[in-house]
Amino acid sequence: MYYPEPMGRLIAQLRKLPGIGPRTAQRLAFHILDIPDQEAKQLIEAIATARDEVSHCSICGNLATEDPCNLCSSPGRDRSLICVLQDPRAVVAMERTHEYKGLYHVLGGAISPMEGIGPDELRVKELIQRLQDGTVKEVVLATDLNAEGEVTATYLARLIKPLGIKTTRLAHGLPVGGDLEYADQVTLAKAFEGRREL
Amino acid sequence: MYYPEPMGRLIAQLRKLPGIGPRTAQRLAFHILDIPDQEAKQLIEAIATARDEVSHCSICGNLATEDPCNLCSSPGRDRSLICVLQDPRAVVAMERTHEYKGLYHVLGGAISPMEGIGPDELRVKELIQRLQDGTVKEVVLATDLNAEGEVTATYLARLIKPLGIKTTRLAHGLPVGGDLEYADQVTLAKAFEGRREL
Repeated sequence: MYYPEPMGRLIAQLRKLPGIGPRTAQRLAFHILDIPDQEAKQLIEAIATARDEVSHCSICGNLATEDPCNLCSSPGRDRSLICVLQDPRAVVAMERTHEYKGLYHVLGGAISPMEGIGPDELRVKELIQRLQDGTVKEVVLATDLNAEGEVTATYLARLIKPLGIKTTRLAHGLPVGGDLEYADQVTLAKAFEGRREL
Repeated sequence: MYYPEPMGRLIAQLRKLPGIGPRTAQRLAFHILDIPDQEAKQLIEAIATARDEVSHCSICGNLATEDPCNLCSSPGRDRSLICVLQDPRAVVAMERTHEYKGLYHVLGGAISPMEGIGPDELRVKELIQRLQDGTVKEVVLATDLNAEGEVTATYLARLIKPLGIKTTRLAHGLPVGGDLEYADQVTLAKAFEGRREL
């Protein structure tokens, strides 16, 4: 131990963050000790406020400060169309295309028997409930294009098609095996345009 | 803006950290929203505590929870030897060698006319003061092996040699142009062993 103890603790906490190794954690810790009080306060407050004020929309499951979220309550969105996504990062990616004007449904993950995640761990029941009143005419299954995402899309298609609702999947313009959040906006917009019925 | 506003603010704060780009900041922000309350509290507390409890030792300038720091007040260290370093990270690197048993002096940077950093911006005066009572027999100038570090070492050597104190520089076993903090412990230990008089 060559660090003062509170610094060692800070480094240990930073190492828990995704993609932060020991070198980066050390560099961040030294930086955090170096910045002016004002800046440190802003960082701490940003963490605390984001956690206090941001939660999940009870309708679509997206991150939001209000419930329902401003996407679900917007009069400008097409209520006959729901895009189903694994997580809130994908909503950010879809919105960035400026092509999509429907609503969203965030599952909170994908079916993965390996990790013990089944339909009950995801917001599947909530999705089916949203489809009961006949407003929704099409569900776009935009789960990630890897094994778990495909399995989830297939599973959902089997549940939704019997309700007489059109079920589509994003076109394979996206790189196979890639996460939706890393797609560039043009590719993603193209993929949405070329969506195909399942 | 596709994020809830407090999230956008959190991402903006995270982007201010060194080496954190927009993608990483977004990933970290989503992670921070996802973790349990307990873990978020620990992170915030670690930042606040490190800043509250860690400050600079008034003698050597190293980061410490006490003043003087436990290196300066340790009876086991050789008080005739001072190793001059640019920043606290280099102390961590030197201590890791287990070869060095003297004291330290952290300058807080290196002379850099380009960035407007002269001797007055560094803890040079404090160093010269420590050399007045005749205890110190050797000063190892272990500033980084780049232009600024070499200039700083040369500058300090000119100040210290007239005091009749041996002035050495770490051997060029270290990769030229490299930062001290990234040196492995064996190389660094060798460099210390082969230090040469200026």
